[in-house]
Amino acid sequence: MSDTSSSKPPLRLGIAGLGTVGAGVIKIVQRKANLLAARTGRPIEISAVSARNRDKDRGVDISAYAWEDDPVALALRDDVDVLVELMGGADGPAKAATEAALAAGKDVVTANKAMLAIHGNELAAKAEAKGAVLRFEAAVAGGIPVVKALTEGLAGNRITRIAGVMNGTCNYILTRMENEGLTYDEVFDAANALGYLEADPTLDVGGIDAGHKLALLASIGFGTRVAFDDMVLEGIERITIEDINHAADMGYRIKLLGVAQMTGRGLEQRMTPCLVPVKSPLGQLENATNMVVLEGDEVGQVVLRGAGAGEGPTASAVLSDVLDIARGFRISTFGVPATTLDSSTPAVASTPAPHYLRLSLVDKPGVLAKVTAALGDAGVSIDRMRQYGQHDNPDVAPVLIVTDPTSRRAIDEALTVMETSGALAAQPVTIRIEDV
Amino acid sequence: MSDTSSSKPPLRLGIAGLGTVGAGVIKIVQRKANLLAARTGRPIEISAVSARNRDKDRGVDISAYAWEDDPVALALRDDVDVLVELMGGADGPAKAATEAALAAGKDVVTANKAMLAIHGNELAAKAEAKGAVLRFEAAVAGGIPVVKALTEGLAGNRITRIAGVMNGTCNYILTRMENEGLTYDEVFDAANALGYLEADPTLDVGGIDAGHKLALLASIGFGTRVAFDDMVLEGIERITIEDINHAADMGYRIKLLGVAQMTGRGLEQRMTPCLVPVKSPLGQLENATNMVVLEGDEVGQVVLRGAGAGEGPTASAVLSDVLDIARGFRISTFGVPATTLDSSTPAVASTPAPHYLRLSLVDKPGVLAKVTAALGDAGVSIDRMRQYGQHDNPDVAPVLIVTDPTSRRAIDEALTVMETSGALAAQPVTIRIEDV
Repeated sequence: MSDTSSSKPPLRLGIAGLGTVGAGVIKIVQRKANLLAARTGRPIEISAVSARNRDKDRGVDISAYAWEDDPVALALRDDVDVLVELMGGADGPAKAATEAALAAGKDVVTANKAMLAIHGNELAAKAEAKGAVLRFEAAVAGGIPVVKALTEGLAGNRITRIAGVMNGTCNYILTRMENEGLTYDEVFDAANALGYLEADPTLDVGGIDAGHKLALLASIGFGTRVAFDDMVLEGIERITIEDINHAADMGYRIKLLGVAQMTGRGLEQRMTPCLVPVKSPLGQLENATNMVVLEGDEVGQVVLRGAGAGEGPTASAVLSDVLDIARGFRISTFGVPATTLDSSTPAVASTPAPHYLRLSLVDKPGVLAKVTAALGDAGVSIDRMRQYGQHDNPDVAPVLIVTDPTSRRAIDEALTVMETSGALAAQPVTIRIEDV
Repeated sequence: MSDTSSSKPPLRLGIAGLGTVGAGVIKIVQRKANLLAARTGRPIEISAVSARNRDKDRGVDISAYAWEDDPVALALRDDVDVLVELMGGADGPAKAATEAALAAGKDVVTANKAMLAIHGNELAAKAEAKGAVLRFEAAVAGGIPVVKALTEGLAGNRITRIAGVMNGTCNYILTRMENEGLTYDEVFDAANALGYLEADPTLDVGGIDAGHKLALLASIGFGTRVAFDDMVLEGIERITIEDINHAADMGYRIKLLGVAQMTGRGLEQRMTPCLVPVKSPLGQLENATNMVVLEGDEVGQVVLRGAGAGEGPTASAVLSDVLDIARGFRISTFGVPATTLDSSTPAVASTPAPHYLRLSLVDKPGVLAKVTAALGDAGVSIDRMRQYGQHDNPDVAPVLIVTDPTSRRAIDEALTVMETSGALAAQPVTIRIEDV
């Protein structure tokens, strides 16, 4: 540590993918050369870059770097020590270049949540077999150093729960719906026009992107193989302004909330819309900001909040990994060697929780009795119930119910009975309530 | 990383200080031996311990560890690789043992904010001269991994500002005053009875303890030598329930807030009561919880929140450092080599900010004109002013003023003029407003 920065050889990066994040990384390396060298004890350099279009203006001068059309060739260059993979996509060039780098024993830093959520176990094992590191701070919650907090900062803890809002676009949509009284479709179209959505918007609003992130954190937290396929996923497409308003009346906000916890029944992983108390840190979260709540048996609850996307924040996270490598920090991708990760059993049922139910009942005598009987028969007890005025349709009686803690399965059972008995005039809405 | 835990020699700890934190560390090492070994690739063991009283019941079995009466002897034992210093106190045995360990080239993990705030530059240089590391996650904001976030997670950033509430006792006192309408003295006595205060309560309520923490973060953030002596310190002793209520009426809460920022005029470091917006993350913070806000030029604002004290959280932070050492992570104490830290120039004046002023004016004609003239002459312009009813003393006219952004010095100038002119019936109250 008392070495001067000039006494160690530079760490030479090959950057594959020159979108906003790639350009952001290049800007930091160019503008902060002295600062980065002072902090790591060695110069950080870029040897070569790769992207689909060489001539595009990215607002950074890349003329000093070698160019490779093929990211695999980039990864294999003799003057590249670390592949910085910023292309995205679970397969294709991103995976090919990552595998090539790891096979050559080179370290890889990536922002690619989809690739790691789907191929992470295999890639981590490949890295470790060659003594390489594969790191992904930028893949989860943008600039928030949450991978580091979980893997290193809380390493003395048995993690009990991980929760969070990890898709800024969804939170932006829900916040605007609530604040401006707009419908989902209206805000979706506005967000799309602003370029906030992925080319395939389902990745955002379907909860897939956020689910990828949660699956990675769960692997670290619980020492289990990444198991994205076992995640319960539900998007925000069916959230209405009506439900947002009812939730607000009862002191809640609707968030696309991820929760992962290890239970006696197996590993629970959910990325679904939930009601959270409006006064909780998660309930207070507005717009595109991300928040992750980590709970450990020693530390209690640690909450981290920051920008979940964008050039600067994501580049900041990429640099965190690069600088760790420059400092000589070597750590397993998911905190313990990939070969020792447990195969988790997905929980057959979620931990019981209160649920919000909005029912549109056929307005006939005896229907409410049928509904309460169906709930009772399924073992669902009612904490609060409210029938409220409906202006547009006199034949329908809308009812709001907050249940006592129960399983989604019990509620679905009751709803099936209600449906069969003809009590429901429209599709019911069920949203879990999380006290986090 | 593909090594099994048995293939590397154990990391052997010597623990000096067996208070609640020391006992907490021992419990984790005992109960989580397999987990810690899996996460670091080597067993974590305790070789020896030291404390003032060997026979005290601490709720942990220490019979398997060697005992040393003298912490310096503990540090020098052949079977101790890392000194875990949990005795506290800026000088005395804590410093002696730390120096002995570092001189022998051994790593030191400490929770001792006072020692580092006062002797940190010198100790870090001693560590680095011997190739040892000296780490202190537990010294700042308890279980929140903020030292790691700043030193590593945000290492690609130029840090622009660090702010936070870092003394749980002060926040507890202020929260109870507000929520229960109690006086400072009433809550102070209650907190004291509960054992929440240091033996010398000034460390807490005078802002010294929190100031120590901020000085350490500022050193990392700005690459400057620790300069606790240059910090502007003001405690919460003079905060009244009246000011808390007036602040609440205007949408603010009073917090003991630390702010460090590098300006063109030098390094600002303040730990003083401030008004913060009630809706901001800091404004929402209640009771003994800590919160640190880190602002970087790339990442924007990252907020971290968690328990700032207590056995589990503090032990969690100690373990974070111990496990980093076990993993072979070697880093300078303040993020860059101590010999390269800049000597900061303390800012001669704070960045201008709005201020809250509560004046008790002599109730005579012309007095208000004198007050506004004094402010105007000092260059202080008024954003809002309110004269309000006073029930207990008809000869005094209480006035609340919120100024436009200005310096404390300008306000003090104006107050001196008011005092000299006999306008003030009682000591004025001035509190800075921070929009953080």
